[in-house]
Amino acid sequence: MQGTLLYGPRDIRFENRPEPTITKPTDAIICLSATCICGSDLWPYRGIQPIAQPTPMGHEYCGIVEEVGREVRNIKPGQFVVGSFATSDNTCVICQHGYQSSCVQREFIITAQAPYVRVPLADGTLVPTADLPSKALIPSLLATSDVLGTGWFAADAANVKPRSTGVVVGDGAVGLLGVLAAKQMGAERIIAMSRHGSRQKLAREFGATDIVTERGDEGVARIKELTRGVGADSVLECVGTQESMLQAIKSTRPGGYVGYVGVPHGVSLDGEQLFYAHVHLHGGPAPVRRYLPELIKLVLEGKINPGKVFDLTLPLEQVAEGYRAMDERRAIKTLLQPNGKK
Amino acid sequence: MQGTLLYGPRDIRFENRPEPTITKPTDAIICLSATCICGSDLWPYRGIQPIAQPTPMGHEYCGIVEEVGREVRNIKPGQFVVGSFATSDNTCVICQHGYQSSCVQREFIITAQAPYVRVPLADGTLVPTADLPSKALIPSLLATSDVLGTGWFAADAANVKPRSTGVVVGDGAVGLLGVLAAKQMGAERIIAMSRHGSRQKLAREFGATDIVTERGDEGVARIKELTRGVGADSVLECVGTQESMLQAIKSTRPGGYVGYVGVPHGVSLDGEQLFYAHVHLHGGPAPVRRYLPELIKLVLEGKINPGKVFDLTLPLEQVAEGYRAMDERRAIKTLLQPNGKK
Repeated sequence: MQGTLLYGPRDIRFENRPEPTITKPTDAIICLSATCICGSDLWPYRGIQPIAQPTPMGHEYCGIVEEVGREVRNIKPGQFVVGSFATSDNTCVICQHGYQSSCVQREFIITAQAPYVRVPLADGTLVPTADLPSKALIPSLLATSDVLGTGWFAADAANVKPRSTGVVVGDGAVGLLGVLAAKQMGAERIIAMSRHGSRQKLAREFGATDIVTERGDEGVARIKELTRGVGADSVLECVGTQESMLQAIKSTRPGGYVGYVGVPHGVSLDGEQLFYAHVHLHGGPAPVRRYLPELIKLVLEGKINPGKVFDLTLPLEQVAEGYRAMDERRAIKTLLQPNGKK
Repeated sequence: MQGTLLYGPRDIRFENRPEPTITKPTDAIICLSATCICGSDLWPYRGIQPIAQPTPMGHEYCGIVEEVGREVRNIKPGQFVVGSFATSDNTCVICQHGYQSSCVQREFIITAQAPYVRVPLADGTLVPTADLPSKALIPSLLATSDVLGTGWFAADAANVKPRSTGVVVGDGAVGLLGVLAAKQMGAERIIAMSRHGSRQKLAREFGATDIVTERGDEGVARIKELTRGVGADSVLECVGTQESMLQAIKSTRPGGYVGYVGVPHGVSLDGEQLFYAHVHLHGGPAPVRRYLPELIKLVLEGKINPGKVFDLTLPLEQVAEGYRAMDERRAIKTLLQPNGKK
């Protein structure tokens, strides 16, 4: 088959790769219905996170189970499944507490921009649907695999509650779905920080009530103006830079919550500043597996449509153009359609 | 009257000071039954937190109301009161959320190592008792003013729940009362990190089930051994150094909680490390006012005896010796008895 490799900054190639096979008895092989490019893929693509050698890419996936190892009990060939970017046994003490993305057996999926992917710990990682979903639902089901699950975790970690005020820092796909999550969790007011027309529009569709275009300390001042001078109850940090993290912390009222899901790059927090900010801080790799059953249900019932974040759909073999479009901010998020060929 | 001033590193003087007077109509003047020295007072005492000029000291207090300003409604002369080190109106939006130590009108009390102290925002800051308490209860009531309230906040911020496992980093008075708080909140197992015999003993009296003497990464490894390899549910950070903060974060299981109340000195947290640690982090100046009614009740009912942390009692005029004893770790915490003279 052919799959995606990153050779160096802005050098994505789609080339021959070994077909995945069952290597452990708990594995499954999935024939992907769709995959996509993640905002976090842009860090190595842009060379900000250096790579030492050609590196396979892709960690968001859904599709039809092709084959399972002999110890897999609950996942069957022919089922449609969604899985998290982090594998989990879903039984260890950490999983039991709902932090499957830190499972003691965790591995990260890294080869999903391809027609087939091997998923370790299939029983604990994958969630099947009762029936094969319609083609129209595939983008939204794919979104649950990471980008929605991550925005959802941001809102959950930021303790969004009915009637609260939330702020979303970052207007990438995760931030936009953070808006959707905050809306679902009952936030009364949702302030999206964005200066891009098309993203502002989608934020409003997902439930944003206010848009703030200022950034940094000016952005913080604007949030304070909108929140009785004290800051928001809940702030979702969906970028991962020093500026965005401080913007999030300073936009939160004392006693409020920051949920951060942007993978931090060069972020350093001063202990004393954090102490007097008096905020709750929680984040990390989203435990998507915890949320998958609920999110899949919401999609299948038509209650949410997170697939709207895909504003560009390409055949998988055009993956390099998908990266370019996101890098140049011509696309919010690119969905890739495999052709089904091994 | 005479009061306490810090002139420079290890230079505490007890000398003539102006008597406090009502300067705002919301003030009260308190004749102190007892005051004490805080672990945080040792930072400037040791010169780690430099001071520019002779600085009055003291922020823990309880006593009899001497006089109130004309706008004070609920606090009456003759009442016994306890107050927090941070003043609060107890009505602003931040106070309503229980973060009185970040009240929009907050001031810090800094002159309490004296016979009399002026307390701004008396109605919102002070909590009166129904009757005058017996002399035997004064140390424990004094403890509620900061050191117990701060240990309590550490346990609360660390989300201590019935049947959970807690770790306390720091065996100063705050850490020891963090043990007491964790016990009251129902922790099943409480691991105190301490290498001092007398403090270990008090930790056990307050409810510690295990003592760990190792520090740093060795201490973390020991905690992991005691917690099924994954770390504790709740960790109370009661020191404020880089080492203690990292020790706390690394001792917490993914999804667990760090409550930090040691005022950070030179602490810097790496964003990526924090992200993958997957912990909840919350702390800051303890909102003691939120807890005061409950803590005072527990003391008056004889359910807790936090005053045990005072292992040295001196007349107020010997305050300099009180600092020396704590600096040299001859005393856990020094209670100071004013002579009542203006």
